[in-house]
Amino acid sequence: MNFAASATRQRAAGLVAELQERICSRILDLERATAAAAERAASAFTVDDWESPPSERGIAGYGSTRVIAGGAPLEKAGVNTSVVTGAQLPPSVVAQRPELEGHGFFAAGVSVVCHPCNPHAPAAHCNYRYFEAQAPDGSRSAWWFGGGADLTPYYPVLDDVRAFHRSLRAACDRHDPRFYPAFKAWCDRYFYLKHRDETRGVGGIFYDYLDAGGFGESQNRTPITPPRSLEQTFAFMHDAGLAFIDAYFPILEARANEPFGARERAFQLLRRGRYVEFNLIYDRGTHFGLQSGGRTESILMSLPPLVRWSYDEQPEPGSAESALAAYLQPHEWLRDDPFAP
Amino acid sequence: MNFAASATRQRAAGLVAELQERICSRILDLERATAAAAERAASAFTVDDWESPPSERGIAGYGSTRVIAGGAPLEKAGVNTSVVTGAQLPPSVVAQRPELEGHGFFAAGVSVVCHPCNPHAPAAHCNYRYFEAQAPDGSRSAWWFGGGADLTPYYPVLDDVRAFHRSLRAACDRHDPRFYPAFKAWCDRYFYLKHRDETRGVGGIFYDYLDAGGFGESQNRTPITPPRSLEQTFAFMHDAGLAFIDAYFPILEARANEPFGARERAFQLLRRGRYVEFNLIYDRGTHFGLQSGGRTESILMSLPPLVRWSYDEQPEPGSAESALAAYLQPHEWLRDDPFAP
Repeated sequence: MNFAASATRQRAAGLVAELQERICSRILDLERATAAAAERAASAFTVDDWESPPSERGIAGYGSTRVIAGGAPLEKAGVNTSVVTGAQLPPSVVAQRPELEGHGFFAAGVSVVCHPCNPHAPAAHCNYRYFEAQAPDGSRSAWWFGGGADLTPYYPVLDDVRAFHRSLRAACDRHDPRFYPAFKAWCDRYFYLKHRDETRGVGGIFYDYLDAGGFGESQNRTPITPPRSLEQTFAFMHDAGLAFIDAYFPILEARANEPFGARERAFQLLRRGRYVEFNLIYDRGTHFGLQSGGRTESILMSLPPLVRWSYDEQPEPGSAESALAAYLQPHEWLRDDPFAP
Repeated sequence: MNFAASATRQRAAGLVAELQERICSRILDLERATAAAAERAASAFTVDDWESPPSERGIAGYGSTRVIAGGAPLEKAGVNTSVVTGAQLPPSVVAQRPELEGHGFFAAGVSVVCHPCNPHAPAAHCNYRYFEAQAPDGSRSAWWFGGGADLTPYYPVLDDVRAFHRSLRAACDRHDPRFYPAFKAWCDRYFYLKHRDETRGVGGIFYDYLDAGGFGESQNRTPITPPRSLEQTFAFMHDAGLAFIDAYFPILEARANEPFGARERAFQLLRRGRYVEFNLIYDRGTHFGLQSGGRTESILMSLPPLVRWSYDEQPEPGSAESALAAYLQPHEWLRDDPFAP
């Protein structure tokens, strides 16, 4: 398959590369400022540019894995892109779009995970991707966008949570007022640990199968009228990507120097265990990647650097740690009182 | 459902309780000896005896979760029993035994995980369980045993691996010479991380659906002739359980005082990440437990206390750490040269 065959594909690849550059550059600015304050050398990304010939499953592509480890304010961060084609749409996609069985695909995506050093600074994740299905005759049979951004605090600050959601809502609202409410609710449903009956964090937005005519999974698709162009949808993906930068990094910057001790660090490591549980047990992207023979180390860059599990360790009632539980249920963060019943 | 209704059920519950007692007692002896040598207080098990009324899915039962955390030589150990009845056999069982669809079940099991402090001491796991299917008229429609024991070294010592397998083989051979070769191979297949193309450790034994007439999954069942009685099968489970004690704890004792430093500790934490990956991505017991609304904290006691992930960290060629890879492919450990092609 010729990656340069379509201007749209080139543009999608360019968009994920642009988002990667901007996010890495923002992270590097923060790392440099932190290093200057501490009079030490700044962290840099380890860059692993890869290209892979067609696998057994007919998947080929290229990408760039960029990881910071042992930095500050980020103990670990990964900003990855991949641009791949495959002979067969993944079964998880065909389940949603049965009419595309046997079609090939093109996908270009960017995926970001940030695990801060400071327990008071939330972890964050975003992922934006363009997908194309290709009919056996080589023509494009469908296209769509998917993505989202979400925040995972361990010592949540309500103003931070609201600011994060406000930034994402503003980006959504510029494109369609129906987006934020729908994508916010979808995010709460997706990042949910059934075995803990809690969300992974305080949510954000999550969407998939967003194309000219609608969004949502096959059983529950919301039509958009009037239909939107590919152009308009690209613009949304671009804005949503930039919104992640505006939504997250000011919070990271503000919380990165909060004082903390062994107690807060221990709680952070414990809570990171839930992050691992979500990603390895539930996350469809992780499962799809690992099962389809993706690059294991690039996929698992999402896992935190250091994690702790401890049998039935519960925060003391009334402690700072006990405040988290209330945040790990869906709330309308932008209401006056999100916790009001 | 009346737990005392059947002498066989009572006996199965008694057997798992006996194995739990013996294993905990062996661990406590080791903890006491280590504490005496270090002139400090010995660790004790946190005991969490539980009983649960019928859940939404009609599962009820009781058990005892026993956990040591922050001990020595074991940084974390869990020795759990559970005795449960359910209105519907789990789908994973029905897939293997379609004739039992709609039947209830009884299960009594013991599950053990040991994560040592010393990186030179291997982690170990065993699980033994008795299962019964119950027809709608209340009669027992089938019974079987499942279980296994396996070893996960980070700095493997060939003699230890051989000794571990020799103990398990001896227990198997006392019952049927076909058991060890079949169960050893099954263990290698089961504890396999596809996304890493490596086994979790150096294996041991793994078996399921062992009843009077055979063992193995529905597609690949090995008949036993002449048929064995329930009595003989109970005796095997008992011996296999005791064999774990003989197979593992001498190795733990021997390796618990090897000198190590930050480098070995860092490698141990990294490798524990693979342990987590296996348990959360592949382990059917973990998935079944979490999906059926089991006790999350008891199920996840198997996870190591402290774990590290680091992007694409590879051991230097020729280093002690690089020796592990060769052990993480199936080998016939009891041959003269297990690594000979």
